Amino acid sequence: MKPPPAADPDFSPSGPSPAGPEPAGWIITVGDELINGVRVDTNTAWLAERLEEYGVRVTRALSVGDDEAAIGEAVAEALATVPLVIVSGGLGPTADDRTKQALADLFGVPLTRRPEVEEAVVAFFATRGRAASPVNLDQALVPEGFEAAVNPRGTAPGMLRRSGGQLLFVLPGVPGEMKALMRGWVEPVLAAEFAAGLIVRRRWFCTTGIGESDLYDSVGDLAEMAPALSLAYLPSPQGTALYLTARGEDEAAVEAALAAAAEHITRAAGEYLYACGNISLAEYLADLFTREELTLATAESCTGGMIAAELTAVAGASAWFRRGWVTYSDEAKSDDLGVPAELIAEHGAVSEPVARAMATGARQRAQSDWSLAVTGIAGPTGERPGKPIGLTFVACAGPDGVVVRRYLFGGSERRLNRSRARAVALDLLRRMVTGLDPERGGWETPRKS
Amino acid sequence: MKPPPAADPDFSPSGPSPAGPEPAGWIITVGDELINGVRVDTNTAWLAERLEEYGVRVTRALSVGDDEAAIGEAVAEALATVPLVIVSGGLGPTADDRTKQALADLFGVPLTRRPEVEEAVVAFFATRGRAASPVNLDQALVPEGFEAAVNPRGTAPGMLRRSGGQLLFVLPGVPGEMKALMRGWVEPVLAAEFAAGLIVRRRWFCTTGIGESDLYDSVGDLAEMAPALSLAYLPSPQGTALYLTARGEDEAAVEAALAAAAEHITRAAGEYLYACGNISLAEYLADLFTREELTLATAESCTGGMIAAELTAVAGASAWFRRGWVTYSDEAKSDDLGVPAELIAEHGAVSEPVARAMATGARQRAQSDWSLAVTGIAGPTGERPGKPIGLTFVACAGPDGVVVRRYLFGGSERRLNRSRARAVALDLLRRMVTGLDPERGGWETPRKS
Repeated sequence: MKPPPAADPDFSPSGPSPAGPEPAGWIITVGDELINGVRVDTNTAWLAERLEEYGVRVTRALSVGDDEAAIGEAVAEALATVPLVIVSGGLGPTADDRTKQALADLFGVPLTRRPEVEEAVVAFFATRGRAASPVNLDQALVPEGFEAAVNPRGTAPGMLRRSGGQLLFVLPGVPGEMKALMRGWVEPVLAAEFAAGLIVRRRWFCTTGIGESDLYDSVGDLAEMAPALSLAYLPSPQGTALYLTARGEDEAAVEAALAAAAEHITRAAGEYLYACGNISLAEYLADLFTREELTLATAESCTGGMIAAELTAVAGASAWFRRGWVTYSDEAKSDDLGVPAELIAEHGAVSEPVARAMATGARQRAQSDWSLAVTGIAGPTGERPGKPIGLTFVACAGPDGVVVRRYLFGGSERRLNRSRARAVALDLLRRMVTGLDPERGGWETPRKS
Repeated sequence: MKPPPAADPDFSPSGPSPAGPEPAGWIITVGDELINGVRVDTNTAWLAERLEEYGVRVTRALSVGDDEAAIGEAVAEALATVPLVIVSGGLGPTADDRTKQALADLFGVPLTRRPEVEEAVVAFFATRGRAASPVNLDQALVPEGFEAAVNPRGTAPGMLRRSGGQLLFVLPGVPGEMKALMRGWVEPVLAAEFAAGLIVRRRWFCTTGIGESDLYDSVGDLAEMAPALSLAYLPSPQGTALYLTARGEDEAAVEAALAAAAEHITRAAGEYLYACGNISLAEYLADLFTREELTLATAESCTGGMIAAELTAVAGASAWFRRGWVTYSDEAKSDDLGVPAELIAEHGAVSEPVARAMATGARQRAQSDWSLAVTGIAGPTGERPGKPIGLTFVACAGPDGVVVRRYLFGGSERRLNRSRARAVALDLLRRMVTGLDPERGGWETPRKS
């Protein structure tokens, strides 16, 4: 790996030197909406993840408003501190976008018109059957001393100032435009300037049906396996994903460390692991059902269509998703799924026998290979004697019969209870279809074998 | 309003003075996950919105990792610049949480044990049937010179250092704990110290079925009505919300400006406005159906259950939501909704007659007052001659008949097309039930009346 380049000689370095072997970077996002509570800044996390890929360690991220002085101060401070600075935002054509003028002021240079950017702006509007207005054409104005890159998705160009090995990139704030310029223009420069000789390999592992801390007890943090490894735990309502990174300068050593770590994770996560790769459980199931030429029907009460919506969000779902019922009333459960009214009267709509009958009825009526049914009390009200909020029955019917599992989620938050019901239902389906023990998973405490 | 307090005399003010009449603040969020791309920082936007409420203008937001030097530098810089600093994160009990030690180092003070915090930690674990470990008890260690506030949701205390009128608040990073301490402890202090004499009034207005720029053409930016007014446009796939703020030192004048602006917005937004308040369209419909004692059924093809899921997410939906069908196959449309197979064969599943028959069948089978049906081609594949991706038919059936509308969404992004279909369907239902013209809305270009 190259040593980090020296700071810009135009600025006296007053901040700390970057520590460690990796070059340090700052991310600066610009926009009033980012500091007045109107918008959450999602660009920073995306940019940081991409920079990590090239061995750049982000040591500070900051947001400032659409204000020339604030932008200039932030950029000057960053250039005095780190070898790589990425600015995003404030490049639009309207009067409230101030980034270019702030940079021109900071460096004491004029804005100059770039013919290649102007041509691209004219072409951008021409393909949309419109003429570029003077304000649009002014997108071709770039501070002197900056290289400009044409924006494939919009009109604001990317800009780069190089000085003594230090790089200052400026990108639009619109996420699609920012990402296109980052991938197509910034990243090749980073690969050449920062990551030459550095090997970074990453892998995702997706688990479900096990809590983050139980998973950690099994998998550990891997630092003891090799110092070049790191493992991030990313919990979500659908399960915990693991993000493994191996880095070093010797390709064979990095690959060997990665392979050893992957084998350890695969063994330790066991049947809670559903994918080596970054895919959702719905995507995994869609692939499984398509590959095995299986079909599915769903019958939902408390989840109200969330399971069907999640599964049909995957393109091509019509090949295997047959139909879904949202049976919110007792009559719907009887009419549409054939659940006997007496069964509901005797056990209540939230009960083991009703969940079983819903799954059986859905599978039979849809003539599908598999079916999944959920009935529960999502809250915040609706509890009855012996039926607390959070009580949920999930049933899965297949060629070999029906399995019903009972869950009692803590807490009365409706949104959370519905998400949990969806998660345990999808996990039960996965276990049944792939022949795993259906009584495990579902965020029970794992049994030690 | 009070003048902004002077900067902390412990630091030589090197940054810019806060400009304008409002005191300026910085938000500092702490955590490796915020600068390595693992997590999007949502605390900053929430905190900024709350600070605005007390007349504090956030001029910079920044994130640093779990590193004592980085935290100390950021806090020192903030204290040298602005009268209010809020730090969030790095207060957990484990070794990677460094904020308290960073503050102790910065101010050259020891950590001292606070009996009231220790008692609260012991009680926190006692109510959960557990004993606090030594590591948990160390949550009671707070840098000397800081006031400590008990955390009602966790074990990390809030901390406040006052110096020469300058305030430095330190809060946990867990959103629920941060918000509880902000609301219950920080905000009363801000009200007394910063907002005394300042009157701030806000109102939400929610619109649907009209694009942001068309809405802007009607409503404008209100700055010409009164300088004390501001209006933020917040577009989402379901519609554009307007967030109106009036501020000043004279209560009657603020209220008068607010009322005049509210009247203007209500008139200008017209029938695209569905709520004066911040509620979703599903919440509006839930309230309407409950109030009017109406019932609903849904029949979904391309949206795959999203409409039912959105509507049943509102608590109490079982009072008015009868049932939903996800009819992904042709057989499902015929079996469950009684759509004649010949109709599908003649016109295709994505057609005006099939949408109409789906809505009619759903209403009849559910014996509901209203029904809503959607059939479309969500993409990214599946187009046929005369049936491009994005083509969507939405039908709404009620006591006076059925209305079907045809939409052609641009773009082949499945997720987006499904969201758009849900949005126009809910808007059509709103218009039908409330007696508005069903041929308007749905993001058509508004007709000038």
